[in-house]
Amino acid sequence: MAGAVSYPAWIAVDWGTSNLRAWAMSDDGHDVDHVTSDRGMGRLAHGDFEPTLMSILAPWVGDRPTTVVACGMVGSRQGWVEAPYTQVPCKPQSGIVTAPVQSNILRVHVIGGVKQDAPSDVMRGEETQIAGFLALNPDWDGVICLPGTHTKWAHISAGEIVSFQTFMTGEIFALLSKQSILRHSVSDAWDDDVFVDTLSDAMARPEALAARLFHIRAQGLLHGADDGWSAARLSGLLVGAELAAARPYWLGQSVAVIGPQTLAQHYVTALQAQAVPTLQTDATQMTLAGLKAAYASLKGTP
Amino acid sequence: MAGAVSYPAWIAVDWGTSNLRAWAMSDDGHDVDHVTSDRGMGRLAHGDFEPTLMSILAPWVGDRPTTVVACGMVGSRQGWVEAPYTQVPCKPQSGIVTAPVQSNILRVHVIGGVKQDAPSDVMRGEETQIAGFLALNPDWDGVICLPGTHTKWAHISAGEIVSFQTFMTGEIFALLSKQSILRHSVSDAWDDDVFVDTLSDAMARPEALAARLFHIRAQGLLHGADDGWSAARLSGLLVGAELAAARPYWLGQSVAVIGPQTLAQHYVTALQAQAVPTLQTDATQMTLAGLKAAYASLKGTP
Repeated sequence: MAGAVSYPAWIAVDWGTSNLRAWAMSDDGHDVDHVTSDRGMGRLAHGDFEPTLMSILAPWVGDRPTTVVACGMVGSRQGWVEAPYTQVPCKPQSGIVTAPVQSNILRVHVIGGVKQDAPSDVMRGEETQIAGFLALNPDWDGVICLPGTHTKWAHISAGEIVSFQTFMTGEIFALLSKQSILRHSVSDAWDDDVFVDTLSDAMARPEALAARLFHIRAQGLLHGADDGWSAARLSGLLVGAELAAARPYWLGQSVAVIGPQTLAQHYVTALQAQAVPTLQTDATQMTLAGLKAAYASLKGTP
Repeated sequence: MAGAVSYPAWIAVDWGTSNLRAWAMSDDGHDVDHVTSDRGMGRLAHGDFEPTLMSILAPWVGDRPTTVVACGMVGSRQGWVEAPYTQVPCKPQSGIVTAPVQSNILRVHVIGGVKQDAPSDVMRGEETQIAGFLALNPDWDGVICLPGTHTKWAHISAGEIVSFQTFMTGEIFALLSKQSILRHSVSDAWDDDVFVDTLSDAMARPEALAARLFHIRAQGLLHGADDGWSAARLSGLLVGAELAAARPYWLGQSVAVIGPQTLAQHYVTALQAQAVPTLQTDATQMTLAGLKAAYASLKGTP
């Protein structure tokens, strides 16, 4: 936490499974301080949420009643309060609920997720990044891609999420590169040309995917290949499979990619190789913009 | 170990990463006793192999010089002795090496694996199951499928492995069903109809695979589906992706499936749904038959 600040007008919180991030917000909508914590909701029991948040925010709050707006898994069934999913088509932050508190110091508003019945899908947290992007780009129609552990693709029209689709690409890459036999081959090195070539190959022949994974290990055993070949090859196969399946989302569309810098850059590279116009923005900035949009809607300001 | 036996003529050993299995063999080629141990090669340091095997086999050996024939990861670079890969096309047990010993009680022959340069691939252990199958079915031409953690498909002609391909389907199923977000949805229950329907769908539209994995979790969250739906759906998607990629192996061929009972049955079900003639045999029996074939070749008997 950087330096002393005057009391914030309100506090923005992104409370995920593994981590919590909070920003002290000024009256004029600037973040004047921030804090991160590893006390993600995944390790908290039901009664822990309020005292945990109180202790993290204490330097900003003291005993003054303060408004908090939170997004993320804190609103799941296992979280502080269940903030229900809203059915598409819908504006991205349609359901906001109030968390139960003992102390009346924190007034905590939790943003609900978005669901889709057919095909079944859910998002929680990404709706706030989408809301932030739309607050900054109000007339934007097209597709938003949010790469991460579970990458989301969302079709946006007239400020609403029309449909969306989740891909486990990030989680599968992590499992295969860290826990499967491929862990002996995949290093942190990266070769962009291998990524683009593999991607193109994977999209052209998606039916061959399963045959190409163990090949990464055999190539290392027999020919000692690396210098970024293995990681870029594995990622190219998995992102290629994702792009092949997500074609109805990006074909003929403009795509905004919202994600952590390096990962988002890989998706931009991949989409540009398909001649898709792309726009890259930062995930954290979109989260904060989305929390500000939710705060504004709670205050009734446009 | 079941009862007292006379000293065996020789000892057959399948020594993998996690486990060791040994059989006491009679002069006339029957297994008269067997033992299993969790002292797989994966947990042994270089000098541990001989004393470990001595202690496991002591009741069968005493101080009599005894021949041992071993297959599996014990012949890898990290094993007792590196038994090199033989390049396809080749007979399945072309490379057999002798392990270094201190005591001269055990004479240990280790069967080498098989490799393929393009596309790069390796097998170690499965070559012995293939040799066992061919010993029992000497005129058999066609394809052998060996489902497991790393499923192998091998094209066999005139007693040789012509080409082969490895799929990580078993390992990926285990990672996704036990360690990914899908662990909340996938149970031990199984629905055969869901498996066959999913398989057909996955083979018809392999490009959609990546879109269908998270759907298993969302379906559970939104509609509470299970009774075997999730496990059979996940397996159907992964085995379907494998069959789509392995089409050059099974199309228009007869396929022998060698594997553990339940898993092999799923592959037989899957292949029969594609109208492929299949034959199912037991993996352990083929391993033992292959070790017998290697022993016979060492003795120079046909």
